[in-house]
Amino acid sequence: MSTRIVELRAKVMKQNDLLARALRERFETAGIIVVSLVSSPGSGKTAFLEKILGGLAPDFRVAALVGDLATENDAARLKRATANVRQITTGTICHLDAQMIEAALEGWQLDSLDFLFIENVGNLVCPSSYDLGEELRFVLLSATEGEDKPLKYPTIFNSSDVAVITKMDMAEAAEFDVAAARRNIESVRPRMQIYEVSAKTGSGMQDVFQLLRNKLAHSPEDRLASSN
Amino acid sequence: MSTRIVELRAKVMKQNDLLARALRERFETAGIIVVSLVSSPGSGKTAFLEKILGGLAPDFRVAALVGDLATENDAARLKRATANVRQITTGTICHLDAQMIEAALEGWQLDSLDFLFIENVGNLVCPSSYDLGEELRFVLLSATEGEDKPLKYPTIFNSSDVAVITKMDMAEAAEFDVAAARRNIESVRPRMQIYEVSAKTGSGMQDVFQLLRNKLAHSPEDRLASSN
Repeated sequence: MSTRIVELRAKVMKQNDLLARALRERFETAGIIVVSLVSSPGSGKTAFLEKILGGLAPDFRVAALVGDLATENDAARLKRATANVRQITTGTICHLDAQMIEAALEGWQLDSLDFLFIENVGNLVCPSSYDLGEELRFVLLSATEGEDKPLKYPTIFNSSDVAVITKMDMAEAAEFDVAAARRNIESVRPRMQIYEVSAKTGSGMQDVFQLLRNKLAHSPEDRLASSN
Repeated sequence: MSTRIVELRAKVMKQNDLLARALRERFETAGIIVVSLVSSPGSGKTAFLEKILGGLAPDFRVAALVGDLATENDAARLKRATANVRQITTGTICHLDAQMIEAALEGWQLDSLDFLFIENVGNLVCPSSYDLGEELRFVLLSATEGEDKPLKYPTIFNSSDVAVITKMDMAEAAEFDVAAARRNIESVRPRMQIYEVSAKTGSGMQDVFQLLRNKLAHSPEDRLASSN
């Protein structure tokens, strides 16, 4: 890439970072936990998120933004779990950015929500450098796509907070070596929390719910409320 | 994106197209069939390519270039099938481009080869707009990643010549609806050739070998040779 492209790119990234910081402050003020999901296309982000929304919806106020180049399929699917779903279609852009999130939130009362989930475009490269103002970034890796993905896409694992191995019900059929996958994640991002789940059977999902509930219990607003 | 970024991007694309055209002429002159593979990360490009190289190697002179952000794992794996393998590591770039291909070919006698395979970085977005000078572009879609990928990533299907549904041995376990996948491919790219394969069991691979053999039999150089 030419120097000019690199410079312009740096400027775009800087603008995104500023906007993401403003979003993060809004989320904190509203006491909402924002979690984004990144993965390859077809790793099961939407199935996982559908389970998460369904599991949290009875007790918490949840919402989701979902990014895709084209189609509103995922939003339609997630609306089975909660009415608060908006699709962001990005056209040819391979990631969401902070500006898209800000625009998609318009009209939503953030302080009437507990959790907002942001499902990024399926891509293991582009989303890694765009901060969306989220508190937690989950990177998903399915048992059918191989153990080596953390080594091949280190940046996305490095920019994420939690790793979720999905489709564990298919691990045996896919001859997936879960110990090797864990070693590879650990080598790229030491001490990263790793969850093994199956959205289909529900296995492992309770641990994820627990993580999310703990986050909410320890959010700044709740700490403030409990000290008053 | 700002106008300046779009303009600079157009310039980069134009340079790539010129270089790709020169590569295509070199490949045609050398009488070599060049096939590139694109897919999500973990769709089974390397397993598929390993089978292809192994199947063609006894009768044809084959070579492969393989792109990844990081690691030389895939090249090491493919070297079990042929010695003519080179890894291209792209760092943070989510696709190969014509210049990377040209550089990687240095020192290889193209006219001593029948087939060159180029495995792109695992990504369903970025590779679509970069011509690599290939004669055929295969887009792979695994039975474990869902039927909707053609609808969600129409550009990569539109810029490819052949669709290959991989991991068909797992279709049943994944509850993969192959008819729906075929309809989705057809709706995005009417009359696209579709192959259903399993690199693991070998099912469907003979049809792919046949396609490649036919291509070589009808390449310009062979037509020239047979008319002399």
